[in-house]
Amino acid sequence: MNPTLIEVLRGSTVESRHAGAVAIVDAVGAVHTALGDIDRPVFPRSAVKLLQALPLVASGAADAYQLTDAELALACASHSGEPAHVATAAGVLAKLGLDETSLECGTQWPSREPVLRGMVARGEAATPLHNNCSGKHSGFVCVACLMARQAGAEAAQFARGYVAADHPVMREVSAALSAATGVDVEHAPRGTDGCSIPTFALPLRALALAFARAGTGQGLSPAHARAAQRLREAAARAPFMVGGTDRFDTRVMQAFGERLFCKIGAEGVYCAALPELGLGVALKIDDGAARAAEAAMADVAQTLLRTEDELLRGYSHAVLRNWRGTEVGALRPAQELSTGLRGPRH
Amino acid sequence: MNPTLIEVLRGSTVESRHAGAVAIVDAVGAVHTALGDIDRPVFPRSAVKLLQALPLVASGAADAYQLTDAELALACASHSGEPAHVATAAGVLAKLGLDETSLECGTQWPSREPVLRGMVARGEAATPLHNNCSGKHSGFVCVACLMARQAGAEAAQFARGYVAADHPVMREVSAALSAATGVDVEHAPRGTDGCSIPTFALPLRALALAFARAGTGQGLSPAHARAAQRLREAAARAPFMVGGTDRFDTRVMQAFGERLFCKIGAEGVYCAALPELGLGVALKIDDGAARAAEAAMADVAQTLLRTEDELLRGYSHAVLRNWRGTEVGALRPAQELSTGLRGPRH
Repeated sequence: MNPTLIEVLRGSTVESRHAGAVAIVDAVGAVHTALGDIDRPVFPRSAVKLLQALPLVASGAADAYQLTDAELALACASHSGEPAHVATAAGVLAKLGLDETSLECGTQWPSREPVLRGMVARGEAATPLHNNCSGKHSGFVCVACLMARQAGAEAAQFARGYVAADHPVMREVSAALSAATGVDVEHAPRGTDGCSIPTFALPLRALALAFARAGTGQGLSPAHARAAQRLREAAARAPFMVGGTDRFDTRVMQAFGERLFCKIGAEGVYCAALPELGLGVALKIDDGAARAAEAAMADVAQTLLRTEDELLRGYSHAVLRNWRGTEVGALRPAQELSTGLRGPRH
Repeated sequence: MNPTLIEVLRGSTVESRHAGAVAIVDAVGAVHTALGDIDRPVFPRSAVKLLQALPLVASGAADAYQLTDAELALACASHSGEPAHVATAAGVLAKLGLDETSLECGTQWPSREPVLRGMVARGEAATPLHNNCSGKHSGFVCVACLMARQAGAEAAQFARGYVAADHPVMREVSAALSAATGVDVEHAPRGTDGCSIPTFALPLRALALAFARAGTGQGLSPAHARAAQRLREAAARAPFMVGGTDRFDTRVMQAFGERLFCKIGAEGVYCAALPELGLGVALKIDDGAARAAEAAMADVAQTLLRTEDELLRGYSHAVLRNWRGTEVGALRPAQELSTGLRGPRH
């Protein structure tokens, strides 16, 4: 059983508890912090989008199609479907002479509620461009188009089926994941992600190692090291593209810039790189709760960056209000997380 | 640590786990099943709305205002804010010569997505009548009005502040909870619920006992026993009012009628009464996840009712699909739940 990481208080009573595991590792695999079972494979889901975007840069596609910081940041994003996200994804596809019909991520309404309501009020329909993964998928289509050009094939036809594990694009993506994590994903448990690409269950230890490598370049091929740096810089320059209005990843990267690259994944996963410390972080809330993943990541970031930043504390100790706006409770890091991160004397 | 009750699969790999506790108890407190810690206090939240509605009937208010089955079922509801729910709550208040301005539950948009979108498309605003608790609160206002009439006071003025723990209405509600559970809630940990009334943390054992009593009448005062029976009958006759379209409680009570009264509460709680077996059920998912609470309740119901009902199995083994509609995983009862309910040989 993993330890409780985050508690949910109602009044002064613990109402709910979120258990999980945290791995903090350096670029040679030395463990800085291990809480819970960091060797049990977990599906990282969208938390590894930066790793999945390495081929976009390393292949030369980002240069070939002159992708901007915003477009590269969007390739690492789980965005909220706001107009700027949709326009940026559409812009990438337009550079390829393609449109949203090339995307195989499926249609999803924007997660940003006012945007969704505005669309409903105007009678607009959601498209694959609104899918939180449309930037990542636009990046996959870029890689497919470059491969098609090199092979003398027709772009749209070559790209078709790019979400399948055995498509040349997805083979590159899987190879990048294997190289960064040090785990051959071909032998890892496999599932299908929300956006229809394969997701591989990997130990938190290996995911944290991959992000330590992505933050430092150490242990990556020169091409992947340069790609990781370019993607991190893009996210730091265009953090809105990685999430959106009021989103944890956007707000934290707006505040901390290149000091912290972080990315949430579905079902309670977080991955992060802290280049100045040479550390990578990977955590999973056992039950899959995003509220707890954000709170735990915020507590980890406060500890590692030695900051009492109000923004981060607003997540690690998030206030809960009821329908009348009355404060009814709060999240807080559990003793086992605090002690595990800071030592027993803290 | 409580046992894992529900597992979430992606492909054939367990992606997430929900731990929790289950108490199944008869009306004299004999334990049929205990999984995990059934003595740790948990906030039952909306799972005890039937108990909170006992004074509505026992006081004579339900008769005085000639409440229908639909209106009584709505008093026990966490409804989805659909037009019939809103109209029924408004109708109760109209019988009192009052309107939604008397409700102190706060404004909430309908949880039923097509209803919400329809309102947005038509430019309509949410009101307290759309709050999932508006039926319960309309019932509280009924009790207040009867008390005001008996005291010769002005109804709306007497009702004001009815959500406060020391208001005469809420004192009756708390007394009913204490009587049914056998725990003096005045000495229980207290929090503020989503709809602004007090919620008291009580052991699952006591909550299950209360529902065994509510299902059989045994151990309740004659007035509370009659009130519980009338409320259960009302829910069985008007199950749409207890939840709404596609809601677990509504669908299950449509299928099983008076054989099973069940009610979800926020943060992963379920309570149920099975009158034919003389049993009450109370369960809490530690992390507060509704998906797991429904799946666990469905598994408990299948076991106790000795049915392989497809509807219940659709919740205990709910299929998960991604944005393209591809089946990507499923919920399933964990071994510890199956064994705990059915014994090791099953």
